[in-house]
Amino acid sequence: VAKRLEKFKTTIFTQMSMLAIKHGAINLGQGFPNFDGPEFVKEAAIQAIKDGKNQYARGYGVPDLNSAVAARFQKDTGLLVDPEKEVTVTSGCTEAIAATILGLINPGDEVILFAPFYDSYEATLSMAGAKVKSVTLRPPNFSVPLDELRSVISKNTRAILINTPHNPTGKMFTREELSVIASLCIENDVLVFADEVYDKLAFEMDHISVASLPGMYERTVTMNSLGKTFSLTGWKIGWAIAPPHLTWGVRQAHSFLTFATSTPMQYAAATALRAPDSYYEELKTDYMAKKAILVDGLKAAGFIVFPSSGTYFIMVDHTPFGLENDVAFCEYLIKEVGVVAIPTSVFYLNPEEGKNLVRFTFCKDEETLRSAVERMKAKL
Amino acid sequence: VAKRLEKFKTTIFTQMSMLAIKHGAINLGQGFPNFDGPEFVKEAAIQAIKDGKNQYARGYGVPDLNSAVAARFQKDTGLLVDPEKEVTVTSGCTEAIAATILGLINPGDEVILFAPFYDSYEATLSMAGAKVKSVTLRPPNFSVPLDELRSVISKNTRAILINTPHNPTGKMFTREELSVIASLCIENDVLVFADEVYDKLAFEMDHISVASLPGMYERTVTMNSLGKTFSLTGWKIGWAIAPPHLTWGVRQAHSFLTFATSTPMQYAAATALRAPDSYYEELKTDYMAKKAILVDGLKAAGFIVFPSSGTYFIMVDHTPFGLENDVAFCEYLIKEVGVVAIPTSVFYLNPEEGKNLVRFTFCKDEETLRSAVERMKAKL
Ligand SMILES: CSCCC(=O)C(=O)O
Ligand SMILES: CSCCC(=O)C(=O)O
Repeated sequence: VAKRLEKFKTTIFTQMSMLAIKHGAINLGQGFPNFDGPEFVKEAAIQAIKDGKNQYARGYGVPDLNSAVAARFQKDTGLLVDPEKEVTVTSGCTEAIAATILGLINPGDEVILFAPFYDSYEATLSMAGAKVKSVTLRPPNFSVPLDELRSVISKNTRAILINTPHNPTGKMFTREELSVIASLCIENDVLVFADEVYDKLAFEMDHISVASLPGMYERTVTMNSLGKTFSLTGWKIGWAIAPPHLTWGVRQAHSFLTFATSTPMQYAAATALRAPDSYYEELKTDYMAKKAILVDGLKAAGFIVFPSSGTYFIMVDHTPFGLENDVAFCEYLIKEVGVVAIPTSVFYLNPEEGKNLVRFTFCKDEETLRSAVERMKAKL
Repeated sequence: VAKRLEKFKTTIFTQMSMLAIKHGAINLGQGFPNFDGPEFVKEAAIQAIKDGKNQYARGYGVPDLNSAVAARFQKDTGLLVDPEKEVTVTSGCTEAIAATILGLINPGDEVILFAPFYDSYEATLSMAGAKVKSVTLRPPNFSVPLDELRSVISKNTRAILINTPHNPTGKMFTREELSVIASLCIENDVLVFADEVYDKLAFEMDHISVASLPGMYERTVTMNSLGKTFSLTGWKIGWAIAPPHLTWGVRQAHSFLTFATSTPMQYAAATALRAPDSYYEELKTDYMAKKAILVDGLKAAGFIVFPSSGTYFIMVDHTPFGLENDVAFCEYLIKEVGVVAIPTSVFYLNPEEGKNLVRFTFCKDEETLRSAVERMKAKL
């Protein structure tokens, strides 16, 4: 294995989903719904396959999807972007992240992450030869320590990666935090790579796109995907929106990482993105009911539950149960209780910082959530 | 844009396909069929979508596809591989190449390519910080200059990339060539990355998998895909087969490049790979008829046509028409004749070497091929 990947292990999501299957445990670990995506989107994919839309798409996306992405972005942020020059369709947001990092970061560039961070960020930065710095969000609200951020930025800082709503904590960056971050970026000529895949799962406050802050669009790559919003995580359609000078780098890397993305799924994604507002409202209502079941259940089971404003994740402190760390707790939870959660120490440069914290997801049907809660209340 | 990608341009395939659309020219450039894939594979994808197989696949592939890939490989090569430990499903062969290179090559490692080479190889090697060396295949048969290859291998050589059947030339590596290459690899502890996506389009001789040579499996990553064999280039399902110690590196990179590949398409790919031999025989018969139309037509139009044993590509020498180089010729061909071909100088480290050569594809229906031939006979 190449040195750049030596320190990384099988992703924690894969590890935990495999354990879930092995132990027949209820999987509240990896973030994928156990219910299906909407019929109208599935129908659109079926129609595209039948219509023979089965050959290479244009590398940066079928025109229909590029347009739908730009239209949706304009509706959400008020920003007008050129679908032909500022939108790149990728194989899921994971590839958008890889193409952005490999396309824009040089060896030795410093990139700042907020810990806990999604595991692919660090691994991909390592592939690009970047130097990773991290700033830890402060529980219970996972707020940004702005002074620390300021002190971490140096003349070698090329980019800050912002994930809002934030996985794994459910934190949403506030306008105040984003304003300070924006000033720092502008002052120090730093880019933002904004992973906003949970933008439609914003429950306690309105989602703010980083690119929408004054002066930020020109230095931001905004990444999103179909999977979370349309409960079709297996379709792997994502995209990156950025001004032409940044899009160029993203597209160059994308050309050689995957060249193009599944053609029929792109047509279906375009249909999905034209969904009426009522689709998003229902999605939110559904998820709020699920969230209430899980949050109430986790509290009743004895966890310290942190507030989560968005995403379909809840962070908890497991220390009331006396296990030594997050990994030991998750093992106990699988084997003795029959529920899978995600240990979070892998999401910190210093694993110690995550040792009390575990993540649960509520992207499961209500019955599954209730069963998991019953097990935890009975056996923890 | 990151320095590693600075020298690369929009891929030639994209450039030429866009020109084809702009000028309404017949596109014998980019290798994608203008006919549809088989109904039974399309049906399998539709069924998978309907059955709700729409969430994240296991990162390295749905078990059904890993098994089908292993079974197909055993049938083709006699090699028994473990579908769980030696097969990785990727988003097309392009991603298999990227994951193999980024997962196994360190900065400074030397990798040898045979020129002319598919453009993603060089770009991806550049992302990995590798040093690219190239050995030019010798027309008219595009044979391997084995002495030159021997002299190019050094103690820093980490891998040789072999594409057989070979794009863009249609050359198939002979058993003699492969035997010498295998000895050199074993002697010098060099890996082989074998791109064999055209293995089922072998017309003039039998395809030989590099991994099937004695002692080679353990040092070879064999890459293939669904797109070419099943005329579904837009589905982007590929895979890499390698012994566990190499698979580990491929999977690590894959985890962070795309994480997983479209779930419903993977189920359909598994169905495709279980096609009876008659499927492959018919495919070959069809393509041989197409090939005859194009080869005869190119000769009649006045080109010097090189022999092509496999792939759906034909290389020609355009110098009888007096244009100064491949790019000028292709421009003339688009604007004055209404046919698109691919200039080949971009496939050489030294573009001069490709200046007389142009590639045509015959993966188009017979009527399209006939029209293109008529135009060239009339207007060249
Ligand atoms: C790509 S696997 C991880 C899915 C996910 O987004 C999560 O569980 O955090
Ligand atoms: C991935 S685009 C190129 C398609 C192809 O294989 C070719 O035309 O050579």
